[in-house]
Amino acid sequence: MSELGRRTRVRVAVDALGGDHPPGEIVAGALDAATELIQPVLFGPAELDTGGLEHVVTTEVVGMEDKPADVVRAKPDSSLVRAVRAVGDRSVDAVVSAGNTGAMLAASLVHIRRLPGVHRPGIAVVIPAHEGPTVLIDSGANADARPEHLLQFAHMGVLFASEILGVASPVVRLLSIGEEPEKGNQLTLEAFALLAASGLEFAGNTEGRRLLEGGGDVVVCDGFTGNVALKTLEGTIRSVLGALRTEISSTRSGRLGGLLIRPAGARLRHRLDPETTGGGYLLGLRGIVVIAHGSSSRRAIANAIRMAATGVEHSIVDALAERVPSRTTAA
Amino acid sequence: MSELGRRTRVRVAVDALGGDHPPGEIVAGALDAATELIQPVLFGPAELDTGGLEHVVTTEVVGMEDKPADVVRAKPDSSLVRAVRAVGDRSVDAVVSAGNTGAMLAASLVHIRRLPGVHRPGIAVVIPAHEGPTVLIDSGANADARPEHLLQFAHMGVLFASEILGVASPVVRLLSIGEEPEKGNQLTLEAFALLAASGLEFAGNTEGRRLLEGGGDVVVCDGFTGNVALKTLEGTIRSVLGALRTEISSTRSGRLGGLLIRPAGARLRHRLDPETTGGGYLLGLRGIVVIAHGSSSRRAIANAIRMAATGVEHSIVDALAERVPSRTTAA
Repeated sequence: MSELGRRTRVRVAVDALGGDHPPGEIVAGALDAATELIQPVLFGPAELDTGGLEHVVTTEVVGMEDKPADVVRAKPDSSLVRAVRAVGDRSVDAVVSAGNTGAMLAASLVHIRRLPGVHRPGIAVVIPAHEGPTVLIDSGANADARPEHLLQFAHMGVLFASEILGVASPVVRLLSIGEEPEKGNQLTLEAFALLAASGLEFAGNTEGRRLLEGGGDVVVCDGFTGNVALKTLEGTIRSVLGALRTEISSTRSGRLGGLLIRPAGARLRHRLDPETTGGGYLLGLRGIVVIAHGSSSRRAIANAIRMAATGVEHSIVDALAERVPSRTTAA
Repeated sequence: MSELGRRTRVRVAVDALGGDHPPGEIVAGALDAATELIQPVLFGPAELDTGGLEHVVTTEVVGMEDKPADVVRAKPDSSLVRAVRAVGDRSVDAVVSAGNTGAMLAASLVHIRRLPGVHRPGIAVVIPAHEGPTVLIDSGANADARPEHLLQFAHMGVLFASEILGVASPVVRLLSIGEEPEKGNQLTLEAFALLAASGLEFAGNTEGRRLLEGGGDVVVCDGFTGNVALKTLEGTIRSVLGALRTEISSTRSGRLGGLLIRPAGARLRHRLDPETTGGGYLLGLRGIVVIAHGSSSRRAIANAIRMAATGVEHSIVDALAERVPSRTTAA
């Protein structure tokens, strides 16, 4: 894939049927993201109106209820599987889907395949922390993980932070239940030892309370914990802002104050909105896969497509291929 | 312990040296909580000024760095161990500490002991969700847990919700990474099957994004996941409100608006403040143990003491003894 980083135009396969709002928000987002340098390719049914974007016709649909393990064989002509396959056969440079995460992982493992030496791909998401962006990895690909997987997630997260976010020497922390080294479960205690011996800039454990403040450039965890933490973070942001709006509008002076702080509220919502990033990279594969939120709006989809293009421009697959396996032991 | 529920005066042992602000905030909170019906008993060094409250003199201190497993033998005359022991020998009705959670658990297992049939005590914390209070259990006692432990946590949480919060038929949900039954890790998938067959009002999985909205009357998880989720929730609330304050004060009209919404902000902060509850019950023991936040202020300590007294008044130990073991299998 080394030539991809030097191509002037990036082709991004977009699953038009993924997520909660297909195909309207997906097509609209793809149109918004399309530029001289970014060329979205929509995968979806014949009747899809792509607004002039390139269209690959597919006949099947993957739903949230489909079993990930069955999707590749059972629905080979689905928009999701075909879009992933297009990365595998290099007819596109990257893929974006807001569909079934498990199905995306399964299809990617079959049609894009892991980089040599990588045990498990992990989902890396950027948290807009107060002290600067934090890469949370794994935020949902592996519900059960082993300590050596967490070590590889750390390496992949560091590469993301340095290559994409431009952090000079990314600091890694392990998400646990106390800052002391002896706090944690069996998984994190073993992962702590591996990280401490890894040569990475490992700064020990961090806690969920630090996630939105800034708990390190890279925060590592298994996919179950990461997914619970990420969803708790996103849901809590939404709930707090919603509850404040309710409290404010319960009095006349509150409503006036609410008008005056509206710009401040909008700035904060914009910074904290997951749609500002658009999605997470599924790292550790021989191609670039961006998984967008199921609830993605047009704006989130456009940002996810831009994120995919950024990954191509920065050649993160090549960088991962060079750096991750050489530093970790096989398992 | 059956006579405790009928006593008119409740004696609560308070570890004067627990938490980040000993002994000042602890003693002040104990004095605030003291009433005709609630009698705090302070455990701490001879020089402690208890402001007239009963004082049991102890000579050792448990720190956050002490290994929980060693504390009972190594520091038998610590304020923490002595306060727990006082519940075991029935010289008090309950104990409150803001100290080392692991040490509280270890001391409680030795000196208060588990109820017959209970595998593992679990920490039950009340989340002030929008739709009503939610009991999160286990929020930190067991970093590694088995499916049958989660089933018992569910029973204990239901009892808490019905006896203390007055919920008629508490609904139980399992904290996982998707609402579909097949979403989760190995632990939650097995726990799901046990909960579905339990006879409890089990409504399936819930996600972190629902925690502050209201994801069920009782939300069950292992202590690692629960602790990460709870700390993420608390930290995110604090970060969002802090970031909003910063945004508001960056403009003149924002500052004026900020003054006008101050009462609304104060109402919200009061509702969401963990100090309003004060702590969590360590359930499954032959006595009442309340674990307060390490950062507890005077107000949090007072509320934790009131929470302990409420547990005594409602005879939750007796209720647990009657109901939990009979419904679950031994393991």
